[in-house]
Amino acid sequence: MKDRKGIKIAVIGGGSSYTPELVEGLIKGYEEMPVSELWLVDIEEGREKLEIVGNLAKRMVRKSGLPIKVELTLNRREAIQGADYVTTQMRVGQLEARKRDEHIPIKHDVIGQETTGPGGMFKALRTIPVILDICRDIEELAPNAWMLNFTNPAGMITEAVTKYSQVKTVGLCNSPINFKKSLAEAYGTSEHQVLPEFVGINHLHWVTSALVNGKERMPELLAGKGEYNAKNVPTLGWDPEFLQSLHAVPTYYLKYYYMTNEMLQEEKEALENNGTRADVVRRVEKELFELYADESLQEKPKQLEQRGGAYYSEAAVQLMKSLYLGRNDIQTLNVPNGAIYDFLPEDASIEINCVVTAAGPVPLKPMHVPETIKGLLHAVKAYESLAIDAAVSGDRGLALQALVHHPLVPSVTVAKVLLEELLEAHKPYLPKFFA
Amino acid sequence: MKDRKGIKIAVIGGGSSYTPELVEGLIKGYEEMPVSELWLVDIEEGREKLEIVGNLAKRMVRKSGLPIKVELTLNRREAIQGADYVTTQMRVGQLEARKRDEHIPIKHDVIGQETTGPGGMFKALRTIPVILDICRDIEELAPNAWMLNFTNPAGMITEAVTKYSQVKTVGLCNSPINFKKSLAEAYGTSEHQVLPEFVGINHLHWVTSALVNGKERMPELLAGKGEYNAKNVPTLGWDPEFLQSLHAVPTYYLKYYYMTNEMLQEEKEALENNGTRADVVRRVEKELFELYADESLQEKPKQLEQRGGAYYSEAAVQLMKSLYLGRNDIQTLNVPNGAIYDFLPEDASIEINCVVTAAGPVPLKPMHVPETIKGLLHAVKAYESLAIDAAVSGDRGLALQALVHHPLVPSVTVAKVLLEELLEAHKPYLPKFFA
Amino acid sequence: MKDRKGIKIAVIGGGSSYTPELVEGLIKGYEEMPVSELWLVDIEEGREKLEIVGNLAKRMVRKSGLPIKVELTLNRREAIQGADYVTTQMRVGQLEARKRDEHIPIKHDVIGQETTGPGGMFKALRTIPVILDICRDIEELAPNAWMLNFTNPAGMITEAVTKYSQVKTVGLCNSPINFKKSLAEAYGTSEHQVLPEFVGINHLHWVTSALVNGKERMPELLAGKGEYNAKNVPTLGWDPEFLQSLHAVPTYYLKYYYMTNEMLQEEKEALENNGTRADVVRRVEKELFELYADESLQEKPKQLEQRGGAYYSEAAVQLMKSLYLGRNDIQTLNVPNGAIYDFLPEDASIEINCVVTAAGPVPLKPMHVPETIKGLLHAVKAYESLAIDAAVSGDRGLALQALVHHPLVPSVTVAKVLLEELLEAHKPYLPKFFA
Amino acid sequence: MKDRKGIKIAVIGGGSSYTPELVEGLIKGYEEMPVSELWLVDIEEGREKLEIVGNLAKRMVRKSGLPIKVELTLNRREAIQGADYVTTQMRVGQLEARKRDEHIPIKHDVIGQETTGPGGMFKALRTIPVILDICRDIEELAPNAWMLNFTNPAGMITEAVTKYSQVKTVGLCNSPINFKKSLAEAYGTSEHQVLPEFVGINHLHWVTSALVNGKERMPELLAGKGEYNAKNVPTLGWDPEFLQSLHAVPTYYLKYYYMTNEMLQEEKEALENNGTRADVVRRVEKELFELYADESLQEKPKQLEQRGGAYYSEAAVQLMKSLYLGRNDIQTLNVPNGAIYDFLPEDASIEINCVVTAAGPVPLKPMHVPETIKGLLHAVKAYESLAIDAAVSGDRGLALQALVHHPLVPSVTVAKVLLEELLEAHKPYLPKFFA
Repeated sequence: MKDRKGIKIAVIGGGSSYTPELVEGLIKGYEEMPVSELWLVDIEEGREKLEIVGNLAKRMVRKSGLPIKVELTLNRREAIQGADYVTTQMRVGQLEARKRDEHIPIKHDVIGQETTGPGGMFKALRTIPVILDICRDIEELAPNAWMLNFTNPAGMITEAVTKYSQVKTVGLCNSPINFKKSLAEAYGTSEHQVLPEFVGINHLHWVTSALVNGKERMPELLAGKGEYNAKNVPTLGWDPEFLQSLHAVPTYYLKYYYMTNEMLQEEKEALENNGTRADVVRRVEKELFELYADESLQEKPKQLEQRGGAYYSEAAVQLMKSLYLGRNDIQTLNVPNGAIYDFLPEDASIEINCVVTAAGPVPLKPMHVPETIKGLLHAVKAYESLAIDAAVSGDRGLALQALVHHPLVPSVTVAKVLLEELLEAHKPYLPKFFA
Repeated sequence: MKDRKGIKIAVIGGGSSYTPELVEGLIKGYEEMPVSELWLVDIEEGREKLEIVGNLAKRMVRKSGLPIKVELTLNRREAIQGADYVTTQMRVGQLEARKRDEHIPIKHDVIGQETTGPGGMFKALRTIPVILDICRDIEELAPNAWMLNFTNPAGMITEAVTKYSQVKTVGLCNSPINFKKSLAEAYGTSEHQVLPEFVGINHLHWVTSALVNGKERMPELLAGKGEYNAKNVPTLGWDPEFLQSLHAVPTYYLKYYYMTNEMLQEEKEALENNGTRADVVRRVEKELFELYADESLQEKPKQLEQRGGAYYSEAAVQLMKSLYLGRNDIQTLNVPNGAIYDFLPEDASIEINCVVTAAGPVPLKPMHVPETIKGLLHAVKAYESLAIDAAVSGDRGLALQALVHHPLVPSVTVAKVLLEELLEAHKPYLPKFFA
Repeated sequence: MKDRKGIKIAVIGGGSSYTPELVEGLIKGYEEMPVSELWLVDIEEGREKLEIVGNLAKRMVRKSGLPIKVELTLNRREAIQGADYVTTQMRVGQLEARKRDEHIPIKHDVIGQETTGPGGMFKALRTIPVILDICRDIEELAPNAWMLNFTNPAGMITEAVTKYSQVKTVGLCNSPINFKKSLAEAYGTSEHQVLPEFVGINHLHWVTSALVNGKERMPELLAGKGEYNAKNVPTLGWDPEFLQSLHAVPTYYLKYYYMTNEMLQEEKEALENNGTRADVVRRVEKELFELYADESLQEKPKQLEQRGGAYYSEAAVQLMKSLYLGRNDIQTLNVPNGAIYDFLPEDASIEINCVVTAAGPVPLKPMHVPETIKGLLHAVKAYESLAIDAAVSGDRGLALQALVHHPLVPSVTVAKVLLEELLEAHKPYLPKFFA
Repeated sequence: MKDRKGIKIAVIGGGSSYTPELVEGLIKGYEEMPVSELWLVDIEEGREKLEIVGNLAKRMVRKSGLPIKVELTLNRREAIQGADYVTTQMRVGQLEARKRDEHIPIKHDVIGQETTGPGGMFKALRTIPVILDICRDIEELAPNAWMLNFTNPAGMITEAVTKYSQVKTVGLCNSPINFKKSLAEAYGTSEHQVLPEFVGINHLHWVTSALVNGKERMPELLAGKGEYNAKNVPTLGWDPEFLQSLHAVPTYYLKYYYMTNEMLQEEKEALENNGTRADVVRRVEKELFELYADESLQEKPKQLEQRGGAYYSEAAVQLMKSLYLGRNDIQTLNVPNGAIYDFLPEDASIEINCVVTAAGPVPLKPMHVPETIKGLLHAVKAYESLAIDAAVSGDRGLALQALVHHPLVPSVTVAKVLLEELLEAHKPYLPKFFA
């Protein structure tokens, strides 16, 4: 793709706790993909974290002995200028906002979660205008760059970029790569020998086939018995009769839909005890940054793998390499639907196995798409598209329709209450709605 | 269509309380569509009702002086033999079964209703095998006949016939014709001067346009103010902000989805007071049959119009006439989707404006299909298709998937409980599931 | 649609010999559709014809005693201002250009015809920029007007307007209405009792069903024997074995494709004897205008019906009436494909039965689309779309591709010769190609 | 895919001159894909060739020292029994029939060619019933086998198998692999570093993108200048202006469509001089079999590469390996269209880049599909589908429609003459048409 000597990468949200994993990946992959500049950019509120993480990154590079220049900056345009890849990993409103996304719905007997339900919708409403603002910079300063987006809700963010900008983008999630790793482990083989088929969209997918060493293993996975090693099997926690007639393994996030009562009950209990996920993450992050600040640390600490977002950056490095080298390998990515699912709009983002060519990812039409799941998939995608348009326009009516049509919201009345309360709670981060 | 002198009509479920309306319509339309034989057929359990209604029908025809032969029979094949039109209006398991469809879900905090939710699903499971059995007779004895189906759930029944038989069929509901009548009344014009656009499927449609005397009146209907006369307006009971951003008027049955909590509360209260709809209908029917039995009665009594199914038979007569005469007029019917909605299967039944030609109804592609409603529409249709396949196969896993994926069922756990209890309750009418 | 007292119609190309038929139709239909202003507009080169025809129109109106104001003008914007309907009937470059469209291809052993083949393409290249210029005026001065286009090639012109303007438009041809009239005559019934199904695009359609008095008559039409009266039957001139296996009646214009050798031979002979169609029309028009100029003439002369374009204006008046009154009747029109043919682009124009509502025509999905014809239909439509884009852009490469991919052009070499020669011949009317 | 020790391959038409290349490939690939049995089967008329080729195959295997059993048989069922892969390479009616396919159309001024035009159609009519007969055996005796079809016309044969049997099949042509090799050579790189994008169907495809070492080289290929080495460039012989506006490189076979006059002229001259291709091939084959018969020969002779079908067997071995190993590499294959081209039927065969998984090939949606070529592509595919149905049914009307709608047949009249003459000429091989 490039005739230049080195590659420039800009990391928006460079102060994120995930950054060391990315740095490790770039160092390991240097021979095949020589990165010359790594720009970590963050906002004023993230200055301290940026410095801690950035200095760790510099120590890691220094130890590697490679000619990679690491730059820390609050000037986004400087970072983007001429970049080959721009990654985004951000949280508009920080953990405080996530906490509100989780707590407020639970109070009204609705699932409160970072990416699913009303909480996910408000994360999207806050984030999309910021992402599109970044896109304006990329269009101007790095029109050939690929934007690798792993900001959540990753599917919606990617769809917004596709619909409302000229930027070339791919959305990334660690859920598929985690599934592959656990499947490989269960069968005692390498990741390259497993090929699961993912059907659906980000955080709402079903695995409908699992080729391991060239052999279909789905029947035995669903039956709960077979040649595999039982630890960490992806079918844990699901009703066996349900799985058998579904003919697919749902992602963890589908528990919010298929086991709504149970998940809500669990959330309520958590809220009373340890707090919601936002509270937990806050504690984990605090510990991580204490580690990162240790000037003797020159590598990614083991503890990062327990953070929940493990392998996010591995996925990002794999993708950059394949785009750069034209490796034509198969990765699971968030891309526009095109003609893959004839019941979804062509410009809707989906999460799907792709061949990554030098010209971009080409999605592989799934061989098994259960009739069973099409309605739910479409219902959630319809909500997503409405929410994206609401984010861009600041149209309150669209936001109401999005909430009403979300399968986890039980009525217009509840939707109106949630809308009112969440808009008010996030007011500083929703200028389009309060113009 | 026919070169014969007269037309033969077979009414399956001829002992229904709706029959007098049908007879009235055939008498009024005799000049354009000369019916020579009207066969009313019922099962042994309905013998008494058949005789009461059948004798009223004979008195009505006698009074008209027309050469229409009315025959009462328990022999279905005799009635179908050589028929031009076969109508179906039946309730497998009678009102007792309907009562269970309503009561059991409510007990588990789920909507209990004749056509919507688990109740509607079990009505379909009981009815579809019987309807397909009738189809076998039609295929053999009257292969050119049109089957006009107004047995509920009419959309699912029609889809089952389309998918699993060779019979030419159309599904009918009185909801669209009622909407047209109320719209015409609101604007003080005739039914022929109104053209509402219906988007969706049976008992799950939205009106997205309302041409009255050639002028679009939807904006003022949604705004709740305009030139129309406010009584009986179809927007009653809906939240105005919600309607405004929906850009459409939902059918009454959508309250089960958009106002689930409120509707469930109402159902629970009814259950404690007057009983559910099944109980009310039982009382109304009792009164109607007392009227019908009066030998001095020679016409359709006024009280029938309050039965809830008013205009069902008017719709049926209109349809027969247009098929017979090739009138090419517009009627709202349940037909296969074909290429109308690109997100639904081609063989899914939809409820839509059609031009009724001598060769059958041709659906008119709607001009306005809100993005908003596509997901919910698809979700309910996906449930319907699963339930139809479950009915045909007696496959318990399919039935579970249908329930789990119904938007009104909150979890796999609840679905399993409902499945168990409803299967047991309707066991005598579900031979496929207990083979 | 209108709350105003009267309707304003602007006729672009008002000096056309067809105008008297239009005037006759407006007079006859006055009671249902009261026209208050009829503006006939033409260009400087057509001033004389405009005056002759315009004065005949005035005499016709005067005789009717109706309050219709007839205005003649060379000022197009004045005519369009506030119009309800704008009709177009024009020939850019006049009969001289048509002559070149016919003669030049024949010289190179390629069909030379006004609407089909290279001749039709150059008529489109000359006309589309002029039509789009008119659209700019309509967008500004009469944004709610319907443009009824009967300028040839009508399908391509309509598609260009749909793709490159905001104007509401419908394309019209007299071929379908002629078919209906001849079918009605053959069976001794009225036009309202026949419903042929047209599949395809303008000047390239097949009739695949023919309901007469509600009965399918296609089998006997194809078999060449039945109850009909044999004069003027639409199957004349076709090979019977071919028709039988085609299961459809092709339009006359399909002879250029299915009987290419024979048609070319006929054209060559005509060229040597009477000249091509352009030469014939010139003579007919001369005679017509002599008639029109007769100040004692106060009605449409009979001779116009032999002009070849008979019933064009009848079709136009029928369409205006149905749009005005919301008659919901079925007319055969050129409209965007939408979802009718899944193998053609959504914005391609097709010729198809439509229900004409007050909000515009709604196409009726054909019931029978032979697999046989899909390829040819797509091939010609692909050529049309390329030619439209060439007309708009003046891109010579696109024009070459259009010609090469036209089924009647045998090779790249011939395409290049024709392109060169026709571009040169029509240079004054092709400013986009010689900028 | 297999748990068995070795793989069984059945080669239908094992006496073909291509067989030595296949044997060479199997020997070279033995380590990754251990073949234990290779069955060469042929018909009585091919007994002599089978023995010559079969003995060469045995000598080649003996020299390799590998435990591959080579069996020669005239008993097809024995060969197919339990096979893992069945390849087909046959010519029903032998070279004598091919000669008639070429000569007869040329006599009537129509392209005469083995796979394109009337000749190709009659090859399909003769071959499809035989192939489907083989499929019946495979369904019974080796239901899990993959059928690799390289019998011409490969696209049509593959489509027939897909439509009319349960056999898993893939069609193969050497044209894409040849393009890749010449592209790699032109840029001095390896085949693995080039990724051309093929759009279309067998023998009617366009290359629309050419990634070489991860960089798009199409613009410079079309411009006829760039970094590549000019020998053997695939753009030779095409008009440069035409290529530039086409934005694609057509396959050689498209010269029959784009340069019809020139190709026909060339064919006529060849007919008068050396004879058509059938005559040339006959001479080449004679020489090859003389070589093969030499008992000292123990390897594939160099001369085979000039036979015209070079790399056919390499393609076959590559495909078998990827199916066997689940290599997930990209190969260009003939598979059902599915949702790739929305203007072609789902069950039409197309030639396209696929990822070859252990479960079969998954097609990759092309990124560039020029509007230009859709019509021609659809026209030829429509002809193909008609011809396939004609072959299966023996319906003369379908055969006539296929010929009439072939873009290279100028009229119904010519189609009828060709049909009559070719049916008569091939009568012994067309039992379905003469039952």
